[in-house]
Amino acid sequence: MVLSMNHFPIGVFDSGLGGLTAVRELRRILPNENIVYFGDTGRVPYGTRSAETIEHYAFQDMRFLLSKKVKLIIAACGTVSSVAAGAATGLNIPFTGVVVPAAHAAAAETRNLKVGIIGTSATIRSKSYEEELHRINAHIEVFSRDCPLFVSMVENGFTSPDNEITKAVVEHYIRPFVASGVDTLILGCTHFPILKEAIANVLGARTSLIDAGYEAAHYAKSLMEKGGIMNSSTEAGKCSFYVTDQIQNFSSIAGLFLGEDITGDVNRVDLDTL
Amino acid sequence: MVLSMNHFPIGVFDSGLGGLTAVRELRRILPNENIVYFGDTGRVPYGTRSAETIEHYAFQDMRFLLSKKVKLIIAACGTVSSVAAGAATGLNIPFTGVVVPAAHAAAAETRNLKVGIIGTSATIRSKSYEEELHRINAHIEVFSRDCPLFVSMVENGFTSPDNEITKAVVEHYIRPFVASGVDTLILGCTHFPILKEAIANVLGARTSLIDAGYEAAHYAKSLMEKGGIMNSSTEAGKCSFYVTDQIQNFSSIAGLFLGEDITGDVNRVDLDTL
Repeated sequence: MVLSMNHFPIGVFDSGLGGLTAVRELRRILPNENIVYFGDTGRVPYGTRSAETIEHYAFQDMRFLLSKKVKLIIAACGTVSSVAAGAATGLNIPFTGVVVPAAHAAAAETRNLKVGIIGTSATIRSKSYEEELHRINAHIEVFSRDCPLFVSMVENGFTSPDNEITKAVVEHYIRPFVASGVDTLILGCTHFPILKEAIANVLGARTSLIDAGYEAAHYAKSLMEKGGIMNSSTEAGKCSFYVTDQIQNFSSIAGLFLGEDITGDVNRVDLDTL
Repeated sequence: MVLSMNHFPIGVFDSGLGGLTAVRELRRILPNENIVYFGDTGRVPYGTRSAETIEHYAFQDMRFLLSKKVKLIIAACGTVSSVAAGAATGLNIPFTGVVVPAAHAAAAETRNLKVGIIGTSATIRSKSYEEELHRINAHIEVFSRDCPLFVSMVENGFTSPDNEITKAVVEHYIRPFVASGVDTLILGCTHFPILKEAIANVLGARTSLIDAGYEAAHYAKSLMEKGGIMNSSTEAGKCSFYVTDQIQNFSSIAGLFLGEDITGDVNRVDLDTL
């Protein structure tokens, strides 16, 4: 008997809830795939920590997903993708972060070759997006800025473009990109698409916003097609969610990221077992 | 031979850097005491997490301090003091959080019996300060508000009262206390004294601000006097700092909290060993 891995789930992880913006797109384009999501809500945020600590956490996160027999792993976290992609070395299943897919999308999108990048401090410090963009096209002029308050703001529900705090913080971080004249901005952290409207209000409608989680979902689909590991089932795929802090907090905000109510099972994982 | 514990260090811990505001006052009023500081910078912030997770972290933090043979422990963290003081049960050395000292100071300070409280979400949800105030004086009217963005803001260096983001966030959280007519406001998180000037700019000079870390330092001194465990040495006390993320990040912002440059040794602790 040949055991196929095709019905195995896709593993997706993030420091917290942001990675659900990738799950949202996966559910739309791959409705028959099963998904295991791991959110390290007990240690979020990652983006203000050192590369060494982020790599250690990422390694634990992936080890957990492997214990769930996933067939592919998406690091749906700009910070992990930028500074800890090395933790995926030695995986014997396909892996993608969000940097490569988002950089390719931005390079294809820009007309004036001026691309902006926003991310956590660790992401921007790593120059990951910048280097990937220049590998694709050395003529692209890059403008980057870290936005260390965005993750806390989003995880605490300050997402409405009309909220005074949201407006002030978004204005502070995004306004300089207007003067730079970028026609494309990479939202280099999977939390940031939640602020899309507020960001567009500053930049205007002519600047394209690249959603890193969305691009990673499409890239993962292409990896699965190439690898011949798509699920051939015609049943709707199931989602399971695992978090390292209490599940109440997760369920209450997660729907905002996922664009639908959480219907799969939500489970708590003890950090000491990672 | 009788071994005295008097020269043993005082143990102070916090989720991150905020507890240094208590160390600052300890150094001033007890210059001959040795201090061991533990900051869980690899998992900060605590105040947005569940009570169960906070209690688990606090237990690990205290176990670390005990391994350093401390003679007294200060939970210089409003969140731990509010929701996880139970983790100190069974300690055979004196212990204090910041809630009891700050509530006593506020009750002594207020003239119109209207006291405001600000803290992290976990702190405000716990009603710790409110219950302690009412134990002291049932007639005190309490106005409380959680400020979930303050810790991230301060740990990311947004502390200047002239900064546009700092002003907007402080205005958002503090303005309602003006209408409440409080004459005393408890800064119920040890990160918040760093925002004292910005807060005073909204409230005006007639509102007293109670610094929880400062009050805890004085309370700890009284506990040590009662217990006869003051250090009789006339040499300047030494400080050792332990953190769970990289030490560079710590040293660069820590001086702001401590009010002086970090001169003691700074060490990294592996979270997996806690």
